[in-house]
Amino acid sequence: MQSGVMAALELFHFPFDPGSRAARLALGEARLEWTETLVRPWEPDCVLGQFNPSGMPPVLRVTDTGKPLILCEAPAILGWLEDAQKAPLLLPADLSERAEARRLTGWFDRRFMDEVNAVLLHERMEKPLLRLGPPEARALREGRDALKGHLAMMEALLNERDWLTGRRMSQADLVAGAHISILDYFGEVSWKAWPGLKTWYMRLKSRPSFRPLLADRFQGLAPVAHYADLDF
Amino acid sequence: MQSGVMAALELFHFPFDPGSRAARLALGEARLEWTETLVRPWEPDCVLGQFNPSGMPPVLRVTDTGKPLILCEAPAILGWLEDAQKAPLLLPADLSERAEARRLTGWFDRRFMDEVNAVLLHERMEKPLLRLGPPEARALREGRDALKGHLAMMEALLNERDWLTGRRMSQADLVAGAHISILDYFGEVSWKAWPGLKTWYMRLKSRPSFRPLLADRFQGLAPVAHYADLDF
Repeated sequence: MQSGVMAALELFHFPFDPGSRAARLALGEARLEWTETLVRPWEPDCVLGQFNPSGMPPVLRVTDTGKPLILCEAPAILGWLEDAQKAPLLLPADLSERAEARRLTGWFDRRFMDEVNAVLLHERMEKPLLRLGPPEARALREGRDALKGHLAMMEALLNERDWLTGRRMSQADLVAGAHISILDYFGEVSWKAWPGLKTWYMRLKSRPSFRPLLADRFQGLAPVAHYADLDF
Repeated sequence: MQSGVMAALELFHFPFDPGSRAARLALGEARLEWTETLVRPWEPDCVLGQFNPSGMPPVLRVTDTGKPLILCEAPAILGWLEDAQKAPLLLPADLSERAEARRLTGWFDRRFMDEVNAVLLHERMEKPLLRLGPPEARALREGRDALKGHLAMMEALLNERDWLTGRRMSQADLVAGAHISILDYFGEVSWKAWPGLKTWYMRLKSRPSFRPLLADRFQGLAPVAHYADLDF
């Protein structure tokens, strides 16, 4: 398709958006260099409206020689990155691991998003950002219960596999890591209960691609003490 | 990867699930032959639970010589089909059309699903299936208003492009066609208001891959009169 290596890459993203984190991890894994513009997609004059009809992050602008290529949201960015690789990077070569990577990506982007983020991140993150008042105890409880179910699912997979998909790291690990790392920032992950998950997350966190995420700071709220520790 | 042509393909699907329809369209476009098992995913003993941890359709079982390959849900099925092609089929070769195909697939599978299906198909389809009582007028109105916005978005694209993504048919057309055709069955699409959309849908409907969908019947409810007409 295109090596992408010589092109200038500009990423528009919101650091606490799971798709934005997945895109940064994937760019890092592909060992590309890019410049960044931080965006606040809920503000009416957000620059994203110029590029993406949905107004959502992330958007990657790829400028080579001609008209820039605009890649809207994580599936388009990850897909483009994978197309540009000589060897499989985000999707394993093994057909059954490849299918698992696609299944789990969908799991996180729909089920996890609907059952955990739409409840728990709404209370912990969107409410302060949009000044919607204090979190509701019942919603927090529901979101935390749902999160437990998802972490148990991951723990079961990681007791049998090195990575979520199988023997090779895949986009499913990056997408899951994007989600989990945001919840971890807010202190929502009880690592002691999930030893397999913790080992996986330590390995993921130690990768150079993860480092920029550990430097992210949310307005007016410091992360939990262990957030940026590689050995926690 | 694998040609897939010699393998036996068995699709487990629910005919009024958008992902199931997208998988059938994609299999048809790839000119493959497959056998089908109809499933009712909301029933506790549904066979899908054996294959897909989410319990959701569609699932494609690919049996070649060794252990069957289990492909859970539309992204894994469409991705596997595309991997098996010699020339681009579901994702156009042009980089910007390819990005559009991925962007629009995400649009339908998240925004359209949340704003239209979760409201309108819940009232028209899930309520009778699960015996949840009659539809609510306010929800129907909200779902129909949301649908109008999405149809207007499609009309605007189709006034400038042959297919949703550009010059070539892509998975975005199949995924959108899967969603729209279910709503059309229930008489929810006012074609007169959207001439560009209507032309696109007539072309899509005329493809051999679409024919099986036009024979689907929902329990106790006949489709609108024009549902299976190619010239409506």
